[in-house]
Formats: sequence, structure tokens, C-alpha cells
Amino acid sequence: MPSRKDLANAIRALSMDAVQKANSGHPGAPMGMADIAEVLWNDYLSHNPADPKWPNRDRFILSNGHGSMLQYSLLHLSGYDVSLDDIKNFRQLHSKTPGHPEYGYTPGIETTTGPLGQGIANAVGFAIAEKALGAQFNRDGHNIVDHYTYAFLGDGCLMEGISHEVCSLAGTLGLGKLIFFYDDNGISIDGEVDGWFTDDTPKRFESYGWQVIPDVDGHSAEEVRRAIEFGRANTDQPTLICCKTIIGFGAPNKQGTESCHGSALGEAEIIAARENLGWNYGDFEVPDDIYAAWNAREKGAAAQKTWNEAFAAYKSAHPELAAELERRMKGDLPANFAEKADAYIRECQEKGETVASRKASQNTLNAYGPMLPELLGGSADLAGSNLTIWDGSKGINKDDASGNYLYYGVREFGMAAIMNGIALHGGFVPYGATFLIFMEYCRNAVRMAALMKQRSIFVFTHDSIGLGEDGPTHQPIEQLTALRSTPNMHVWRPADAVESAIAWKSALERTDGPSALVFSRQGLPHQDRDDEQLADAAKGAYILSDDSGRPDLILIATGSEVSLAQESANTLREQGHKVRVVSMPSAEVFDEQDAKYKQQVLPLDVTNRVAIEAGYADYWYKYVGLDGRIVGMTSFGESAPAGELFKYFGFTVDNVVSVAQELLDN
Amino acid sequence: MPSRKDLANAIRALSMDAVQKANSGHPGAPMGMADIAEVLWNDYLSHNPADPKWPNRDRFILSNGHGSMLQYSLLHLSGYDVSLDDIKNFRQLHSKTPGHPEYGYTPGIETTTGPLGQGIANAVGFAIAEKALGAQFNRDGHNIVDHYTYAFLGDGCLMEGISHEVCSLAGTLGLGKLIFFYDDNGISIDGEVDGWFTDDTPKRFESYGWQVIPDVDGHSAEEVRRAIEFGRANTDQPTLICCKTIIGFGAPNKQGTESCHGSALGEAEIIAARENLGWNYGDFEVPDDIYAAWNAREKGAAAQKTWNEAFAAYKSAHPELAAELERRMKGDLPANFAEKADAYIRECQEKGETVASRKASQNTLNAYGPMLPELLGGSADLAGSNLTIWDGSKGINKDDASGNYLYYGVREFGMAAIMNGIALHGGFVPYGATFLIFMEYCRNAVRMAALMKQRSIFVFTHDSIGLGEDGPTHQPIEQLTALRSTPNMHVWRPADAVESAIAWKSALERTDGPSALVFSRQGLPHQDRDDEQLADAAKGAYILSDDSGRPDLILIATGSEVSLAQESANTLREQGHKVRVVSMPSAEVFDEQDAKYKQQVLPLDVTNRVAIEAGYADYWYKYVGLDGRIVGMTSFGESAPAGELFKYFGFTVDNVVSVAQELLDN
Repeated sequence: MPSRKDLANAIRALSMDAVQKANSGHPGAPMGMADIAEVLWNDYLSHNPADPKWPNRDRFILSNGHGSMLQYSLLHLSGYDVSLDDIKNFRQLHSKTPGHPEYGYTPGIETTTGPLGQGIANAVGFAIAEKALGAQFNRDGHNIVDHYTYAFLGDGCLMEGISHEVCSLAGTLGLGKLIFFYDDNGISIDGEVDGWFTDDTPKRFESYGWQVIPDVDGHSAEEVRRAIEFGRANTDQPTLICCKTIIGFGAPNKQGTESCHGSALGEAEIIAARENLGWNYGDFEVPDDIYAAWNAREKGAAAQKTWNEAFAAYKSAHPELAAELERRMKGDLPANFAEKADAYIRECQEKGETVASRKASQNTLNAYGPMLPELLGGSADLAGSNLTIWDGSKGINKDDASGNYLYYGVREFGMAAIMNGIALHGGFVPYGATFLIFMEYCRNAVRMAALMKQRSIFVFTHDSIGLGEDGPTHQPIEQLTALRSTPNMHVWRPADAVESAIAWKSALERTDGPSALVFSRQGLPHQDRDDEQLADAAKGAYILSDDSGRPDLILIATGSEVSLAQESANTLREQGHKVRVVSMPSAEVFDEQDAKYKQQVLPLDVTNRVAIEAGYADYWYKYVGLDGRIVGMTSFGESAPAGELFKYFGFTVDNVVSVAQELLDN
Repeated sequence: MPSRKDLANAIRALSMDAVQKANSGHPGAPMGMADIAEVLWNDYLSHNPADPKWPNRDRFILSNGHGSMLQYSLLHLSGYDVSLDDIKNFRQLHSKTPGHPEYGYTPGIETTTGPLGQGIANAVGFAIAEKALGAQFNRDGHNIVDHYTYAFLGDGCLMEGISHEVCSLAGTLGLGKLIFFYDDNGISIDGEVDGWFTDDTPKRFESYGWQVIPDVDGHSAEEVRRAIEFGRANTDQPTLICCKTIIGFGAPNKQGTESCHGSALGEAEIIAARENLGWNYGDFEVPDDIYAAWNAREKGAAAQKTWNEAFAAYKSAHPELAAELERRMKGDLPANFAEKADAYIRECQEKGETVASRKASQNTLNAYGPMLPELLGGSADLAGSNLTIWDGSKGINKDDASGNYLYYGVREFGMAAIMNGIALHGGFVPYGATFLIFMEYCRNAVRMAALMKQRSIFVFTHDSIGLGEDGPTHQPIEQLTALRSTPNMHVWRPADAVESAIAWKSALERTDGPSALVFSRQGLPHQDRDDEQLADAAKGAYILSDDSGRPDLILIATGSEVSLAQESANTLREQGHKVRVVSMPSAEVFDEQDAKYKQQVLPLDVTNRVAIEAGYADYWYKYVGLDGRIVGMTSFGESAPAGELFKYFGFTVDNVVSVAQELLDN
């Protein structure tokens, strides 16, 4: 029977071998946290390697994602579909074992980690989702949503600001089934952390209302075990287990120093480490008895079987709830959603309201919300401005998590990364809001949603200089471009209530990535559309008004500038020009259309094009080319009433007409 | 003699009147913090309204910048060039009193605030600058750099993650002359903060090593005074004064609720507040005795005179030091810098080294650094990767702040915002580094540097898929576009060691905004240049290789793709085509050149253009138009060795030639 140390050493050996073979990677964290991981995975983690998507599995997140070989070793050893060849392919193109854990590349990876601090934010999202889903679906005697969320993290995660945002909120929400393991090894890339990181971390987490287990020897299985028991027993508070460890444990000359953090140990040190650890096996060699002790397939199958039986009992007692839970975990929308949403969109078209698109967004939530109990909304302390609360919104708090709305506080980055965790958990479609400018505070989490192909819906209001008096710090300019240039991101900037409802429908129906819904503060006039235009609006860009025959000029606009384009077109038409107006609420969705449709909307031979958008001008060269013109922003904004700003920056019929005239006169 | 309450009520009255007149703004914070501000400004703040740039003034920062009327009231009352008309123009176009305090718009505003948490980060930067400058310049008996930095902040600032990053670092660095006033009013925009913010804030700050003065009645001048005394007496630790206040203090029906946070009180409530406060004066009326009691011109002139005398004594004892301090506070580079930098650039050209541009950056620091004691470098825990430490680097720590290098820890956002504070303080040119992808973590501070026109130099290394095995979480794609689309930002992506040295020179000489220097992880081949090309490289884009006569094709490239463009051009030339290669290290700098130069480099009639850059492709429509082609990234990256990735994503001579061929065949 192998000892616990032998089991942990298997992780160490695989990690140092894989990093050495790739000649790239981070052996320090896997070797330092191997003992902790061994106890957690072998004694506590409830999971089934044969079914990595089993809904009630415990979630395990490696927030210090650079230590990816720790997680790959665990997956391989415990019986996931991660082979020794996969391990040998560490960090190679299209392998199952990329440099950092990547969601969707490897069975058992719950989230993509590497950008520090976000893994623990995702973990908080997982724990919120578990608590809220349980509160919505569990019934007396039927705890069918009931799992822990465990995360590993290092000094880097704790220095990052996002750790403050999400751990503070986790304390407030009393996430009792969230357990963090802090790898307190005293080393970061620049060396011993004493020079730049002197927090009393236990005290800090106590200030957030966490249970803290300090001074745990991270190389003592017994101490780690006892700490986990404390963590699991306390269901009112999240738990931080502070584990003192030695980075690169086992490498006799490099352990305890930054030299083993981020590069291969080298052949000589690996030989010395093998000897030091008493690991008398070849490269990538793990003896059968160690494999056998690690293998979790049998235990996992039994755990899942027990749950399956519990779920069957639940299903027979609460058939509708069970069916609904199954639907939500699959991520399917209700069968009649598309039809009812289309009806609402037509209703908006008929109603013809002039409202701010942020208000139109709220109206849409009121229309779609009752159909979608999976919606889990929120705002970073701007609910009254973002208009994210609809009639069916109910706050989630420590004592009652059955609601569908999170008061995130002034924590934009935390919000976005928590949303990603909620989306990854399943059972919910998260939406969360802030001002468009503060997209920048949560920027990398928005990108991570795109990278992980998650249905996180980001609501960004106050979308231009139309925000007015708050001034340049609050007026977005280049933010639309930043969003649009993000791979796999859909950005919608609707022109009126109709396009707002279409944008929401598209975001909700999208299953392979996030959407950013960008709404105005100020009122936007309604636009006329026939049925064909209504259908085409969902294609991201469409002809909103036109004259017969080949146009002399195309005006392309989005959002609040569409009505300006329409008025300008009318003036130009009075002057005898044939003008087409193209409304382009989503450039990315338009780009995905077939060539024929794109040519129909923007014929290549019409080079007289003017793009109009109160955002970064140069983005629009993509659609107007070097022969066109752009009415956009080329500087920061100013503090003044919105109407004055639009005039000051040239968003007037006069200016658009005169810019168009330059082209028409050529 | 007016009472302290009367003095504070002058702030309240001006604030509610100005917000009412603008029908926009935030009366709650100014009314809540008026008593604290009155004590600080009248009893402690050392400043001279007649000379807002007096170098040794105390710095005052309103981190909860939405309460801007508090600061405008203080500036007006104490005698700055902020008139009653300016106050009445609150939030109007081009007024001195924009919606949020904007650096450069108003005398006495030390930094632009509004984006929450960044004001306190700037304040930490001010305090670091004061401590480091003092350590470098003060001599026995001559404390000529010796001032406090005070900041006001609210719940929002404390919820933001950046507050964790910078307050943790401030504790580590023992910034004893930094004093924060926390406006603990229990209210944020969404209502009572209990639902989303339950931190034990005193305990949290104690965990950072701060002195905390808890439970101060923010409406008791005596308690505030005593707290400030404690703060000033403790020179080893920064101090947090926790002031219990009532938001909107004095408005009888709205105080203590979120309804007075962010909108005008309304006529009726203002009348009631006047009565409640015993403020029997008209709109915007302040009686003379209250003006007289507030006026700080005489006291300020005396304080500055005392300092001037002290500085004269210092100057006579240490003439060279004094001259150097004056130069540095003015922000002038040494007189011979340009000449010596040019000599180094020519030396690089002659040497012809093939090195990674991050290494070329470090070499440049070693060349320029000895001339520039004002350089204050750092990295967010990636010194060994960013190569930001040069031979003259010396760490700054709690006990010895005379160095020129900050170990920022894993705190990108904190770093960038601290850099802005350092730049604003004067005496230093800050540079700070992280991976280009983690620009996103500090994104809004980078933007704020551009908005404030500060010489913050952001060093971003590992600039593309060339980063290799770390994979898509670490490989920038759209980040160059995000930087380039930021108004007033200069972005440099050099092709070799020569362009790297030119980029550093440009960033250092620029006095009206920040620069982002974007460097490669991998080695970049040297390019040949004659003297004219060497001079033109500083113009942002230039002809690197050409054939005689009008080119059939122009290849535009930056950074690591310039050598690919050169090789591809050679292949195309062998096929008989006339090919020009344009290296464009800085598109923004090129855009600033005159029309003639631009036409010379990129003649409008040559529409066969191919842009090559391992970043977001569509940015390049700006230079190639709809008739050109782009070899760029249209997806996220992958984890693999860099060489494989460049091949996989089409950055090969074969691909560039075949793309060019499509144009040439037309």
C-alpha cells in the first residue's frame, strides 16, 4: 500500500517531468501543493472521472493556473480521459494539456485560469450558483443540489485587487460551501514576498467574515485533513485554509526559492529530486499500485449512482421541478421562448415608443424575464442607472438565496468574473451591469467569457458622450472598439426599443459566447420597419431606409446615431441624392452573415460611405475604407449637458450633411 | 466670528445650490464630509491658493470624485482662482468646474478622480513620490521635501479591488505621511450597504499594517482634529481615519438615504435644509465673515515664504542638489539627453544586434538610466520577464526610500494608478511593466494617464502569440488596438533594438501624455537603415526598404512582423515586383506627421497594401482600406512553442507572398 507521500510524489514527478520535456512551465506550485491536493482529492472531492459533467460534482478550481501540471496530474492519476501521452504533450499545439488549464480543452477542467485572482472569483460564482440553485430546487428531504467548491490559490491571487472584491462579497453572502486553500510559500516571481506583500492574510479574511484556519502545515496530511473538516463543518461562512508550504518541495537545491517557480528544474535537479523524494521510477513512470490508489473511477461511479437515485426520488416527488432543473442544467431556453420573444419584438415595433435603450432593456427584461427563471441579474451598485431590476427581481442574500438578483456592490471586475463562474456552473444565465466606461475595470473577465465561450451577458449603459455632465472620466470613447475587437464577442448597440429587444433575444439564444449589450442613457426615437427589416435587424446590420436604385451614398450608424443618420439622409434626399441608411447594431453578427447578404446591404461598388457613431472614429475604416468618411470621436469627451456635447463634437445633421457632401461632390 | 459649523455649512450650501442649478451632480458626499473638510483645510492643510503648484504643498485628493462640489467649494472659499461664477457654471461645457475633478481644468485639483478607487491609488503614488524624493534630496537640517498627502474616500473606493492593492502596498512601504479619511456613511447608490458590504474595515486596514482611528464622529470637529493629530504623529504607518457621517447632512428629509447621493435635492428640500442648518442666506450667497474665515491666502503665502527661505538655505548649502531638484520638479530632461540618446541609437544601428525587444529595452535603460535619476521604475512581479531592472536600479523600501525601483507585487491596476500619482507629484518619470495582456488589469489607469496628459511610461512585454506556451490567456490579440484607440496615447511596437531605443527616447521626451512601449519576448533581427531612415523612424512610420519608382505593393508591419515583411518583400522582388516595406512602430506618432510626409510614405494612389501584425487584424483597415489585405489575428491564440504558432496562424513568407499575390494579380 503506497503512503500518502508516495501518492503526492506521483504529482511531483509527473509535474517536473512534463515541464522538463516541454522546457517550459511551472514546477514550483505543483510540487508545493501536492500533499494538499492528495488529501483533498483522495479523501474529500466528490467527482466521477467517467462523467466530468455530472451536475452535482464538487468543483475544483486551480486559481494559480500556472501550476497546471498539478491539475493535469490529478486528472490523469484519478482516471479522467487524460493519458500519459497527453501529459507528455504538455504545452504543445492542440494538446489536452495547454500551458494553463483551458476550459473545453480537457475533461475535468471547470474554468480557464492563469490571469491571477480570476479563478477564485469564478469559484465564488460557482458557490453562489450552487447556493442559489439549491435554494430554488432543493425540497425537504431532497438535497439534489449540494456540492462544495474548492479552490487553490497563491500569493499572486491574494495580491490582486479582485481577490478583495470577491472574498468580501463571499463573506457577506455566507458561502458556507466554499473552501479556499492558500499556498503560503512566501515566494513570488520577483523573489521573497516580504518586500512587497506583508498582509496579515488571516486577519484580512476575518475582516470579510470568513472562517480562517491559520498555520496549517501544507505538507502534513493530517493537518490538512483536519482543516478541511473544519471547513466542511462550517456551513455559515466560507473558509480559508492557510497552508504553509515549500515551493518546489522535493527539489533539494531549488525548493523554497523563486528559481523553481516558472521554469524547468533541469535534468540534474530532477535526478536529485527523485533521490530526495525516494521516487525510484523513470521519467513519466508511475507504478501500478500508485495508479490504483489514486484511481477514483469506482468511488466516483458510486457517488454518482447514489445521486442518480436521489434524483430519481426527487423526480418522482417533484416531476416538474426535476424537468425544469434538467432543462436549466442543459442550458436550453424554454421551448416557446423564441416565439414569444418575436411577438414582443413585433409589439415593440407596433408600439413605437421613444425611450432610452437602457429603459427599453428593462422593459425587455420584464417581457422575457417571466419566461426565464434561469436569469440571474445584477449590477455593480448602479441598479437604478443600469435599470437591471425588473418586476420579478428578488435579491439573493445570506439567509435566502432563492432569488435571482445579486447586489454586487462597487465591484465590476469581481462581478464579471463571478458571472463567468455562474455561467460555467450551469443552471443560470447571468447578466450583470455597469456603465460602459467601467467595462475597463472588468475588462479581462469579459475577455475570459469570450475565450471560454460562456453565455455571460454584460449590460453596459451610458454608452457615449450622451452620458453628459459626468464628463470624460465617465464617457466611453474607445470602449466599443475594445469590445468589438475581442474574438468571439458579440456587441450590440441598439438604435431603439425594437433593436434592444432583438439584442437581448440574440444574447439569450447564443450558446457559444458572451454578448455585450450597450445601452444609452438618453431617449432614442423609434424607427419604422416592415416585417423584412424586422427580420433582418437580427442579422446585425440591415437597410433601414433607402431610395430606389443604386445609392449615391450609404450612411452607416449605430445606437443613438441612427436617428441622426435618418434625419441627415432626409436632408440629402431633399437635395436630390439617393441615400441608403444602414443600421448596424452588431457588426460582429453582421460579419457572420453570408457574402450575398453583406453585399446586398453594403454593395462593394458604393464607396461613398459615411459611418456615424459617437465612439472611436477609426474603427469604422473597416466599413467605409479609405474612400469614406467617419463622423466619430477623436478625443476624450467633456463635462456638459448631453445635447451640447453632441453639437460640440459634430453629431448634427449639418455636419453629417456637409461631410457627405464632400464625397458626393467628388 | 463664524462657528466651525457655519464654515462647514458654506460648503453644504454651495454644493446643494450648484447641483440644483446644474440639475445634475452629487450633493450627498459634500454635505456629509463638510465638517471633516473644514477641520482639515482650516487647521492642517499646508497650501497656498495663490500658487497651486508650490512644490512642497500638502496634496489633497478627493477619491470619491463624484463629490466634486466639496472640492470646488473648498477651492473657492479658501481663495483659489475659482470664482462664484465658476461655481455657478458647475458641469457646463469648458467650465472650471466639470462634473468630476479634472486635472488641468481647475487650479488646486491634483488629479482627476471619479473612477472609484483610483484617487486613493494616486494618493499612494503621491506619498511614495514624497518619501522617495525626500530620501534623495533632503539633507541634515534641510527637509525641503516634506509634506502630507490627504485623501477622502467613500464606500465605493473601499469596495473596489484597487483599494486592496494600493493600501496593502502603502502598509508595506510604511507611508507615514499618508492620511485617509473614510466617509463611512453606510450608503451607496443601490441603498444601505449592509446588503453587499459588510467588511470590518478597521480590521482590514490593520491587516495591511496601517494605523486605524476607528469610530470618529465625522460631524465633530474635535474628534476629527484629534484623529488627524494621531495620523500626523505616526510617521511609520499610513493612517486610516474612519469617520461616521450622515450622507447629505442637513437635508432634513433626504439625509442618511441614497436619495441625496446622486441628484439635486430639489427646491423644497434645499429650503428645508437651509432652515435646518440655520443658513439664512440666498442662493450662492456666502457672507463676508465666512469668506474671511476660510481665506487661506495669507496663511498660504506665509507657509510658502517659510519654505522659500528654507529652500534658499538648502540651495546655498547644496547648490547642485537644489538645481537638480528644480530641474526634476519642472519635468525637464537633462540638457544633453537628446544628443546622448541619439548617439546611443546610432550605436545600436552600428552594432546590429539581434535581441528580444524586451532585452533591447533593458539595454536602453542601461544607456539612458545613468543620465536620468528621475526614472522611477517597477514591475508587477515580473521584473525578470519584463527586464525592467537595470544596473542602476535600487529598490525602495520602508526603511530606505532613496532608491529608484518599486517592487509593486502582483498589482497591475494599483501599479498604473500609483505611477500616475508619482507623475502628477513631480520629480519623477515613472515606468512600470507587466505582460501586454495584463494591460487589461490596469486598463482604466492607463486611460487616466492619457486623459491627464501624464508622462507615465507603460512597458508591456510578451506582446503577441510569440509568448508561446503560456497560451491564449497570456497572448495579447486585441490589446494593441485598445491602446491605439485611446485618445492621446502613444503606442510603440519596435521592430528591433534600434527602434526600441527610439521608442524610449520618444516616451521620455513626451511631456503631454503617456506612452505604451510594447516589447517582444522573442529575439528580433536587426534591420539595416541609413541616416535618413534612422531619423524618420522617430516619425512613427518610415520606408524601411524600397525599389525605385512607384511601388506595386506596400507591406506595412510592426514589431516582430517587420522582418517577415522584409523577407516576403525579397521573395516578391525576386518575382519582379516593386515592393516597399513600411515599418510602423507607432501609428499615432505617424498620424501626427504632416500630410506631405504621410503621402511620401504611404502614397494614396498605391492601393495594393498588405498590413502584417500578430494582433487584431481589423485595426489595419485604417491603413490598407477595403482594397488591401491584412495578415493578422482573427481568433484567440493557442498554447504551443512560438515558432509553431507563427506558422499555424499564417505569419510565414509563403502566406504573406500568397496574400500579396492576390492583390498583384488583380
